[in-house]
Amino acid sequence: MHWPHKDLLSIQQLSVPQIEHIFDLAAKFAEINNRPVKKVPTLKGKSVVLFFAEPSTRTKLSFDMAGKRLSADTFSLAQSGSSLQKGESLSDTALTLQAMHPDAIVLRHVASGASDYLARHLQCAIINAGDGWHAHPTQALLDGFSLFQVWGEAFAGKNILLLGDIAHSRVARSDIEMLTKLGAKVRVCAPRTLLPPALLSWPVELEQNLHKACQDMDAVICLRLQLERQQAGLLPDLREYAAHFGLRPCHLQHARSDVQLLHPGPVNRGIEIAPELADADNSRILDQVSSGVATRMALLYLYLTSSREEA
Amino acid sequence: MHWPHKDLLSIQQLSVPQIEHIFDLAAKFAEINNRPVKKVPTLKGKSVVLFFAEPSTRTKLSFDMAGKRLSADTFSLAQSGSSLQKGESLSDTALTLQAMHPDAIVLRHVASGASDYLARHLQCAIINAGDGWHAHPTQALLDGFSLFQVWGEAFAGKNILLLGDIAHSRVARSDIEMLTKLGAKVRVCAPRTLLPPALLSWPVELEQNLHKACQDMDAVICLRLQLERQQAGLLPDLREYAAHFGLRPCHLQHARSDVQLLHPGPVNRGIEIAPELADADNSRILDQVSSGVATRMALLYLYLTSSREEA
Amino acid sequence: MHWPHKDLLSIQQLSVPQIEHIFDLAAKFAEINNRPVKKVPTLKGKSVVLFFAEPSTRTKLSFDMAGKRLSADTFSLAQSGSSLQKGESLSDTALTLQAMHPDAIVLRHVASGASDYLARHLQCAIINAGDGWHAHPTQALLDGFSLFQVWGEAFAGKNILLLGDIAHSRVARSDIEMLTKLGAKVRVCAPRTLLPPALLSWPVELEQNLHKACQDMDAVICLRLQLERQQAGLLPDLREYAAHFGLRPCHLQHARSDVQLLHPGPVNRGIEIAPELADADNSRILDQVSSGVATRMALLYLYLTSSREEA
Repeated sequence: MHWPHKDLLSIQQLSVPQIEHIFDLAAKFAEINNRPVKKVPTLKGKSVVLFFAEPSTRTKLSFDMAGKRLSADTFSLAQSGSSLQKGESLSDTALTLQAMHPDAIVLRHVASGASDYLARHLQCAIINAGDGWHAHPTQALLDGFSLFQVWGEAFAGKNILLLGDIAHSRVARSDIEMLTKLGAKVRVCAPRTLLPPALLSWPVELEQNLHKACQDMDAVICLRLQLERQQAGLLPDLREYAAHFGLRPCHLQHARSDVQLLHPGPVNRGIEIAPELADADNSRILDQVSSGVATRMALLYLYLTSSREEA
Repeated sequence: MHWPHKDLLSIQQLSVPQIEHIFDLAAKFAEINNRPVKKVPTLKGKSVVLFFAEPSTRTKLSFDMAGKRLSADTFSLAQSGSSLQKGESLSDTALTLQAMHPDAIVLRHVASGASDYLARHLQCAIINAGDGWHAHPTQALLDGFSLFQVWGEAFAGKNILLLGDIAHSRVARSDIEMLTKLGAKVRVCAPRTLLPPALLSWPVELEQNLHKACQDMDAVICLRLQLERQQAGLLPDLREYAAHFGLRPCHLQHARSDVQLLHPGPVNRGIEIAPELADADNSRILDQVSSGVATRMALLYLYLTSSREEA
Repeated sequence: MHWPHKDLLSIQQLSVPQIEHIFDLAAKFAEINNRPVKKVPTLKGKSVVLFFAEPSTRTKLSFDMAGKRLSADTFSLAQSGSSLQKGESLSDTALTLQAMHPDAIVLRHVASGASDYLARHLQCAIINAGDGWHAHPTQALLDGFSLFQVWGEAFAGKNILLLGDIAHSRVARSDIEMLTKLGAKVRVCAPRTLLPPALLSWPVELEQNLHKACQDMDAVICLRLQLERQQAGLLPDLREYAAHFGLRPCHLQHARSDVQLLHPGPVNRGIEIAPELADADNSRILDQVSSGVATRMALLYLYLTSSREEA
């Protein structure tokens, strides 16, 4: 498949066949990750800069693994210790990076739109690894790939619940875009203070009672609760939050019998999801981590070999 | 030699032939480290995660070099910036790491038993790079390999003194296990406040006068003094400590003429050991660093190719 | 060309033919950096330790890229988290590093002379990546290579202005050494408080009026202003500094028409140089970044293959 995109900024850019192509490729790379020798020479001589201006462990490590397993060289750049601290603008830092001829910059940034901005100014591929509350397309794609491994391409008509802090979640925004594009029906459940003002314009259904929200669901995606939200006055105490919006077995009585449970991690056990559910057979939480490496291998492959063809 | 162990948690797991096999292998790898091209393809396609939840320079760098010289990919993960700071449990962090399909996790952790815990829960190899006061088996093995390069396998009947902060030293515990297993006789010398309560049950002799303690010794292993111990009230002032327990040439008059001097580093010169001894011909301190890379190459080889056979 | 040097400590060590040889090699490596596959096996099996005891982004990343594109293994070591924090001396840290058999140590250090000190004590190659106010030879060489790409070897008789904080700039010292060695004439322009006491003994001309200073210049090298200098009382307010010593288009009316503009970065736009000049066609600022990778590839090649021949 010809890959027409220079950058991965949000799910909006991708067509359904393109998303399914990513899943197919990820399935091939997932197989490599289970081999004793987990390395192919595909991206040898490519340079991938991991520029994480917000702290991150798992996403950065996941990209690092994805890059190295394809034989790319990876380079870490953190906000702390970077020129940004010396007052350099994001644009100047980015142009400086580009002058070193990387093939891709994987960017996590606190500002919504940071990736779009860089993509317009730089020639190399920009992979958005999370920008503010805006988008986290690689997380959505790995969530999708985790479900693809259970459902195949049969997303149409599936019912999926997004549970928790919708307002401040780039994962929620990207998941909703991808799932509705694939034909699934999305419901959201959250306290009012954690719902975004623009919710009415989103293609989702709202149900604030968690028992009712789980009815007929094929999958529940729990979102991470930033515990700081409590200090910001958006939450009552955590115990009360967990009592109303923490997923427990009782909520799933009227969900589909093979309901899939997801969480982007790290999990606050007992707050967003009961431990017995996080560890249940139908929990995809650890599969999501594995899927993350495979999906990012697929993405680096698509965005870096495509630019190779142009070269 | 078939290698039966999934993990390296403590010296207790290892038989004498296994320890000697590690030394033999380390000797081969030490030879590689002296070549102009210090790299063999042995572990190509293997992923080694260096998870140092306590700060470390030399041990982490040593494992990093060991891994890369065997062509493994290495991945650094620090406590700061890791999900542990977001309240994730060690177990969840470890399961997350495992889901990325590393072949080994090298773990340093402040909690005694952290490596044992992970080893029970994870399928990949766990290499203990120091857990609390409990064990530091790779340090003991590199100490042993440094002496093996001088003595060969003739550890039986050798007299070895461990000098300094025995109570808080995982190095001391692991050294004592290994050295007595190899047939050496171990003596300890330390102020009372730096001796562990359980000392009586250890297979060692106590001598608090350093002049007497050094008598007939074939090797003296100085331990690092954490200078914080003084603030904890366990030490008089450092000058007084150095006067009584800092190794100086006068103490070695009745040691064996070719007494070997070791220190795990970094050295507080003039406190644990006199500078002229640290730099003397019979000081193994820098050899220990070289031995560290070679020993860890041997260990990564044994634990990663063994799991390869199972795969 | 036989390369006689073990270490790169300052420009003083280098002859004109040697500097020109570095430029020629850098030109070859710059070509590799523009290929789709930016990697050659030249330094496979070599270990390069990047020991940055002062924070740095671009220089460290530049060396990291240079090393990996030549297939060397690179190892990062920061001051924080290093044994230096545990009170180990620079010399002991260095000997410890050497015991791990690196082929080169790239050192940035706050102390002038740190690299010279290590070079005397260690057998491996020491590359000075900036020591205090003393020297930053790789920056000077990349500045030179940027100009070489415009001028070729025709440095003789060129007029070059160094503008800004001369007193505290290792870049200024190294640039002046290299440029005068190549036959260029160097002028400096700075407020009195940012001129070094030893200026009279330097082979440079002083002109404190920026309009006059720019007259007939073939190149202007702006230096970075450490904004902390203001707090140290060396500067009036920044606006006044920028008004008198910030380079603007009006200053260049009597410069050569193809005057080249350089800045080591990161740029404080509007303070050291006007944004429209930083982004102008005759600005070499981003070329300097590209030149940095290529120049450091040339240097690693020279210093690491030379030691290989001895081995």
